[in-house]
Amino acid sequence: MVDLYRLFNPRGIAIVGASREPNKIGSVILRNLIEAGYEGKIYPINPNAQEIMGLKAYPSISAVEGTVDVAVISVPAPKVPDVIEDAGKAGVKFAVVIASGFKEVGNVALEEEVVKRAKKYGMRVVGPNVFGYVYTPSKINTTFGPNDIIPGNVAFISQSGALGVALMGTASVEGLGISAIISIGNKADLDDSDFIEYLGDDPNTNLILIYMEGISEGQRFMEVASKVSLKKPIIIIKSGRSEAGARAAASHTGSLAGNYSLYKSAFRQSGILLAETIEQAFDWAKALAWNPLPKGDNVVIITNGGGAGVQATDALADYGITLRRISDTLAANLKQILPPFASLGNPIDLTGLANAEWYYQSISLALDDPNVDSLVVIYCRTGMTDPKEIAGAIKDALKSSKNRKPITVAMIGGEAEYEAMRELTREHIPTYPTPERASASMGAIYRYYYAKKYVEERLKELDKKKLTALERIR
Amino acid sequence: MVDLYRLFNPRGIAIVGASREPNKIGSVILRNLIEAGYEGKIYPINPNAQEIMGLKAYPSISAVEGTVDVAVISVPAPKVPDVIEDAGKAGVKFAVVIASGFKEVGNVALEEEVVKRAKKYGMRVVGPNVFGYVYTPSKINTTFGPNDIIPGNVAFISQSGALGVALMGTASVEGLGISAIISIGNKADLDDSDFIEYLGDDPNTNLILIYMEGISEGQRFMEVASKVSLKKPIIIIKSGRSEAGARAAASHTGSLAGNYSLYKSAFRQSGILLAETIEQAFDWAKALAWNPLPKGDNVVIITNGGGAGVQATDALADYGITLRRISDTLAANLKQILPPFASLGNPIDLTGLANAEWYYQSISLALDDPNVDSLVVIYCRTGMTDPKEIAGAIKDALKSSKNRKPITVAMIGGEAEYEAMRELTREHIPTYPTPERASASMGAIYRYYYAKKYVEERLKELDKKKLTALERIR
Repeated sequence: MVDLYRLFNPRGIAIVGASREPNKIGSVILRNLIEAGYEGKIYPINPNAQEIMGLKAYPSISAVEGTVDVAVISVPAPKVPDVIEDAGKAGVKFAVVIASGFKEVGNVALEEEVVKRAKKYGMRVVGPNVFGYVYTPSKINTTFGPNDIIPGNVAFISQSGALGVALMGTASVEGLGISAIISIGNKADLDDSDFIEYLGDDPNTNLILIYMEGISEGQRFMEVASKVSLKKPIIIIKSGRSEAGARAAASHTGSLAGNYSLYKSAFRQSGILLAETIEQAFDWAKALAWNPLPKGDNVVIITNGGGAGVQATDALADYGITLRRISDTLAANLKQILPPFASLGNPIDLTGLANAEWYYQSISLALDDPNVDSLVVIYCRTGMTDPKEIAGAIKDALKSSKNRKPITVAMIGGEAEYEAMRELTREHIPTYPTPERASASMGAIYRYYYAKKYVEERLKELDKKKLTALERIR
Repeated sequence: MVDLYRLFNPRGIAIVGASREPNKIGSVILRNLIEAGYEGKIYPINPNAQEIMGLKAYPSISAVEGTVDVAVISVPAPKVPDVIEDAGKAGVKFAVVIASGFKEVGNVALEEEVVKRAKKYGMRVVGPNVFGYVYTPSKINTTFGPNDIIPGNVAFISQSGALGVALMGTASVEGLGISAIISIGNKADLDDSDFIEYLGDDPNTNLILIYMEGISEGQRFMEVASKVSLKKPIIIIKSGRSEAGARAAASHTGSLAGNYSLYKSAFRQSGILLAETIEQAFDWAKALAWNPLPKGDNVVIITNGGGAGVQATDALADYGITLRRISDTLAANLKQILPPFASLGNPIDLTGLANAEWYYQSISLALDDPNVDSLVVIYCRTGMTDPKEIAGAIKDALKSSKNRKPITVAMIGGEAEYEAMRELTREHIPTYPTPERASASMGAIYRYYYAKKYVEERLKELDKKKLTALERIR
């Protein structure tokens, strides 16, 4: 395993290419790092400045007196090798090369030169052609993306630059808390596997989300992903699913997207959850990052709308989950607190008259029933209840129960329901605006639940014989 | 065709069951109708009140001196037949029976009695067990749902009550403009086919969106839907796709959801677009309601992010759309205005440096190119551009071109991009927060484009021989 500890916990960071022009990429990065509240030392490197944003500037990294563990390099590509040389001499451990103009435009030799020089000094390279990285536990944001990141426990690795930066914003709007964001760009040195392996052991990360265009070392990737999948879920959006998409990816990155079905099978063998869309990946991530794993596959739906319950049932079925009848005990207990017209099947239909108390009681009873493994709770706007109160009831029921079980929620309706959804999201109760998305996200929990079991079994076999498929995705 | 003109353009509406208690359903309906700005006469009917919400109250409909075309009946089920009798005598044309407690709870006889009495007077019944209806051109809202409806040209028919009311709110949040909302409930008399047929000719409606649990008269439904599909798109969410979902639907409505694959094939033959999720249906509705139909299937993607372009390409492929190379002329024209590093394939990648002017120019050129039939435009947040300006450029390019072509847009990023998305949505430019949703919605346009062609051909045949499938979905 590559020891990335000092990348994520650096004692000092040098920003090479920071300047007084506020819109230069190096300056945006410096500002983001300052505003993120990084508590180590920050060194702007610029031979033409004495001071930038209130910090003393240095003509080179080797001119810095303190320890610099990371150099974020935002100078034109041809100048990068010299900066690497300087960083190496200064004992820098990681070079994050923001600059583009390398392999992605055909400049293979320049990219190789960068890695060669870094290697000489035992320095590792992130990139080139990246937008930087984030690690919220250390209050680091060396990206030129937004700075309103919600701290959390999801690590996001992006091969795409523009999309990656945009998705930093989407994560904030969607309430997805972040531990790390890593732009891996051309992957001249450090690649997906290195980061997955390290983050697999990172106590601040409990889910890894990846936007991937292609991988080169398939076997190592599968080995690493399999091991990490046993500890935490890995969700991948693999671009270039279709033939046309693969062609577009090739013209975009110069690298072949490869045969999607091979990726698919390799991912399945490694316990990776393959998302087809960004929305799906983010939805799944919330459900998996914020829930415990279930103990079994008995999912119960609680709803105040029959139609919404049917939609949720259908969407669960898409993930291979078939609802079972609730136990007689649970039915009897529910009967005590619900009116006679409530439907005690599965879905449990509280009917449109349901108030916050009914939600609280029925969720509590379901959490306490040993036969219930997970809950999908659905609220449809009615004229008579305040969605805030329903959200409060859901929150209280979860808090007051001794039993932690996976839950996803749908709040369907207008602005007030969307606000209640955001409120529950802030409390890390995964909530969605449609019943299908709540069910699909519960489905993802079970996809991981089974993937993990599968990988456990497969790894036992793997000791005996190497699977042939491992070679096929190279 | 059932003439529903006076339902949607009534001279007077009686609200039976309105009272001074503000939270009673009849009162909410009365308030909604007043606040919606309905310009005909409103008659609260309540034997125990002189005046309700500033309007003179009447003991019965027959006591009203003016013309009452519609009676909205919100009294307990057992009292409904007498109200129907009274309404019939008063010459009411349509009874909208809000009350539940009929067939859905086994009271078949009471429901039949209601229809029988109505028939005697030539009166038609909507419901029972409905939440009312909306028709924005006449400023009518007789529902007990929300009242912040955005006027527009999408008609929404819902068999589900709770979900239907909730989706009224969702439509507003999502910016989907509404012409009509009809809750059809138990469909004791008027059913989907009657409304589809009428709305097919309604000049204020250019798309019909249906949440359906099941239909009974399959043949008539297919005939009507086929004819209407030629004029405007019909999107249906059919609940009970899975076996478990069908069981849940059965316990919810008492009616069998039927075999999904039969519905699927009947819908395909009728030109209906079958949506699997609420989100999909709403996304498609915006794209179809706000766009002209394309002239051919050459879709061009314009993006500032390669990765987002690949995602969009993949999602188009899911709908059977394969991107073709752009014409040499368009490439040459783009070369004039774009920097050399922009990628002139399809997707056209303006790169992360793209500003509003590049968007304006490239969209304008694509609209003017006779080989381009439709556009998917994607913006990924960058640090250097204001998404508002990009949105403005998209709007301006569409306005200043003589050529109207279908377009969908993705604005990917943080709060500012979401706001730009809402701004474009207000302008009826269908905009989504992910590239996949923008592409899928373009895909729906093409699904309709081909469905329409197919139905045209099929209807020609239909004159010769009745298709056997028609009988199979009864």
